[in-house]
Amino acid sequence: MKETNQVANMALLTDLYELTMAACYYEYSMFEPATFSLFIRQYPRSRRYFVSAGLADVLSYLENFRFSAEDLEYLEKTEIFKPGFLAYLEKLRFTGDVYALPEGRLFFINEPLLEVTAPLIEAQIIETYLINALNFQSMIATKASRCVRAAWPRKLVDFSLRRTQGTDAGLKVARASFIGGFLGTSNVLAGKVYGIPIFGTMAHSFILSFEKEIEAFRAFAQTFPENTTLLVDTYDTLSGTVKAVEVAREMQQRGENFKGVRLDSGDIALLSQKVRDILKGSGFQEATIFASGGFDEYKIQNVLAQGGDIDSLGVGTKMGVSADAPYFDMAYKLVKYADRPVMKLSPGKKTLVGDKQVFRFRGSGGKLKRDVIGLRDDEMERGKPLLLKVMEKGKVMIELPLLTEIQKAFFGEFAQLDDKYKTLESRASKYSVQLSPRLKRLQAQVVRELKDRELGDKDETI
Amino acid sequence: MKETNQVANMALLTDLYELTMAACYYEYSMFEPATFSLFIRQYPRSRRYFVSAGLADVLSYLENFRFSAEDLEYLEKTEIFKPGFLAYLEKLRFTGDVYALPEGRLFFINEPLLEVTAPLIEAQIIETYLINALNFQSMIATKASRCVRAAWPRKLVDFSLRRTQGTDAGLKVARASFIGGFLGTSNVLAGKVYGIPIFGTMAHSFILSFEKEIEAFRAFAQTFPENTTLLVDTYDTLSGTVKAVEVAREMQQRGENFKGVRLDSGDIALLSQKVRDILKGSGFQEATIFASGGFDEYKIQNVLAQGGDIDSLGVGTKMGVSADAPYFDMAYKLVKYADRPVMKLSPGKKTLVGDKQVFRFRGSGGKLKRDVIGLRDDEMERGKPLLLKVMEKGKVMIELPLLTEIQKAFFGEFAQLDDKYKTLESRASKYSVQLSPRLKRLQAQVVRELKDRELGDKDETI
Repeated sequence: MKETNQVANMALLTDLYELTMAACYYEYSMFEPATFSLFIRQYPRSRRYFVSAGLADVLSYLENFRFSAEDLEYLEKTEIFKPGFLAYLEKLRFTGDVYALPEGRLFFINEPLLEVTAPLIEAQIIETYLINALNFQSMIATKASRCVRAAWPRKLVDFSLRRTQGTDAGLKVARASFIGGFLGTSNVLAGKVYGIPIFGTMAHSFILSFEKEIEAFRAFAQTFPENTTLLVDTYDTLSGTVKAVEVAREMQQRGENFKGVRLDSGDIALLSQKVRDILKGSGFQEATIFASGGFDEYKIQNVLAQGGDIDSLGVGTKMGVSADAPYFDMAYKLVKYADRPVMKLSPGKKTLVGDKQVFRFRGSGGKLKRDVIGLRDDEMERGKPLLLKVMEKGKVMIELPLLTEIQKAFFGEFAQLDDKYKTLESRASKYSVQLSPRLKRLQAQVVRELKDRELGDKDETI
Repeated sequence: MKETNQVANMALLTDLYELTMAACYYEYSMFEPATFSLFIRQYPRSRRYFVSAGLADVLSYLENFRFSAEDLEYLEKTEIFKPGFLAYLEKLRFTGDVYALPEGRLFFINEPLLEVTAPLIEAQIIETYLINALNFQSMIATKASRCVRAAWPRKLVDFSLRRTQGTDAGLKVARASFIGGFLGTSNVLAGKVYGIPIFGTMAHSFILSFEKEIEAFRAFAQTFPENTTLLVDTYDTLSGTVKAVEVAREMQQRGENFKGVRLDSGDIALLSQKVRDILKGSGFQEATIFASGGFDEYKIQNVLAQGGDIDSLGVGTKMGVSADAPYFDMAYKLVKYADRPVMKLSPGKKTLVGDKQVFRFRGSGGKLKRDVIGLRDDEMERGKPLLLKVMEKGKVMIELPLLTEIQKAFFGEFAQLDDKYKTLESRASKYSVQLSPRLKRLQAQVVRELKDRELGDKDETI
């Protein structure tokens, strides 16, 4: 499976304030190295873990970062910026270092998923794209993993493309849901771009285009004798199944491969059982029942709990927009500038200062036990550092894994996370994430200094 | 304001089943004209109207529709399709007619937002892209209009880019929220591509990069003496405001333009009042208070109800993903093939058959009174047809309006919709949408015929 993540020039895909800040840093010659840390501040609804995804796009973006002549022309026309700064932007490339968690791995709140160290302007100006890429793809990989677990061992296919939030989202959902354990996607372009297996059969409009349902079934069977799944709910699921069986018998006589039926509406738990009876009663023990229509982890869990007899599922809209948690509270925060550890004190938004590392401790059989967020140069016996140096001086330092390898890594790590962190309940246990003693001390010291310096005069002036 | 909607080759951005169905139609020489209708099946949470957006992208996509050599090479490699069909795809262009509601207009459930009539394969294969473009952009324009109404007459700026679902979504949100009444966006690329006004000042990291908060304020004021809004909540909102006032006085003495402050955390209703007191008490009556941080229509309504003293707002993530309703139930359904009106009978998913038109009836002063969905050739005295012929034989028939004109049309129409349809309550009144007598009769006749034909033998066989 190939993997092409070529991010086109996206330098202008940024918030204007990244550029106004940069202009000011430029005026004040603030080119010292800065470290920014990217992490998720809270668990969204009923989630207790995250699956990393999006790093391949980030690395491609950083390697290709530059403002085109057209970009600079536009910026000039805004009359916001001085010529000197625009000339500086023209030459600007990303020359920093990046530590990051590889894709398809588990992480938890407050843990840096990525840290960038680069001259201040470079590290600042990339903020918007980095959050955009990592937030969304990690959110979808996480959502997909929940669906995969609920359906296990049934296979899932991404059917979300028509209602993803834009076209880029459609591609990213196909990729991220594959990382989170999906078998493939209906998205043909994702098949071409990422080499993800593609799946699909027919819509209701296909049935309607023929004068009779059974004629539609026959025509499809003739055209695709090797791979025939028939959509049976256009008029009535059970009548449709009876007609499908009739066509299946015709195929059998011709030595062709009737695969099964697809249900897309109604009470799937009940209908799937009745459909199974019809199929088995007609001698089609091996025929598969594929279900679709509004599925997500919750509906999968419910339909299976009610005895739904399903072999595989198409999972669409609700997964593709992560409907019950359509954004994560991911932030990218300055934690160090010119060797000075920094943080903001805004309520509920404190950050962990300095260059950091995440250390993972495992129990027997490799089971995930606890993580410790420490300083980058902390030493932890038995704690495995999770963030790899993926970029140095603007050059990618790792060989990007194939998507299939990322998925395999995900399955391996996911199996080692205790089930209590995977339930769909809102009040599930939280995985233990602690701070190292050195980080704790530094943190306390910075808070103290900041309060002295910035708030010391508070009572007096207000 | 310019408007460039150039949709790159997106022919492969489709569900595989569109192509397998097409292959079957090709085998069976099913090239008769088909009509598909695109509409929203239900009102999402607490919504009672929709704002149309996305048509410009759809028209560009249809005009540019073609499979590239690279696309066809990929399809060949999948081994799903026969060479004859791939040769057919190579020459395939969109040659159909499209009726659609222009952008920035109000529509309601079940009303076609767009109808396509084209040879069956052409009309089918475009389904995925059309829903993808119209569903998302209409959803965001609708969400934006709710925020605009809640904040009125305060101005809103789109701050969502970092957490939109992908990069294409970031651009589309900027455009659709402008249609729904926003003043502008932080998204610089959207400024370049669509000519939307861009806004932005500074992040907390800017403050942290300086040794002291007040130094950061001074540096920004020096760099942008014409447009200085200072972010005051990095350490403490009120202390920050006092420092901002100090810098404002310095600017005043230099004859520069201190604009105001931005609040981004804490109890904004309370803080904004205290900040206003400080500003006024220091002689800055004209200074503006800009608020951001987790705003959507609900938070805007609450903060203002609590007496929040705010001049304008940045509205981000929750608007940019339409967080309380992150997808609409938009469908694209075959309603006629080869002159035969068709529908599916799947539970809860009935469709309105035939080529249709939506007629709007207005009361005194132009107030929206009711809509009637009729057949395309229905005649309604006083009912104004809403769907325009925007494309004929694959050629765009209208001059695309400027974005500012679309926004103006939205404001004009929105003012004529009764407030009772605009509340944020879940059980608000529904606007009246009826079926014309002729459509009703045709509908009943098709249901009767289908039941006879497809379900007549049901009791016997199951």
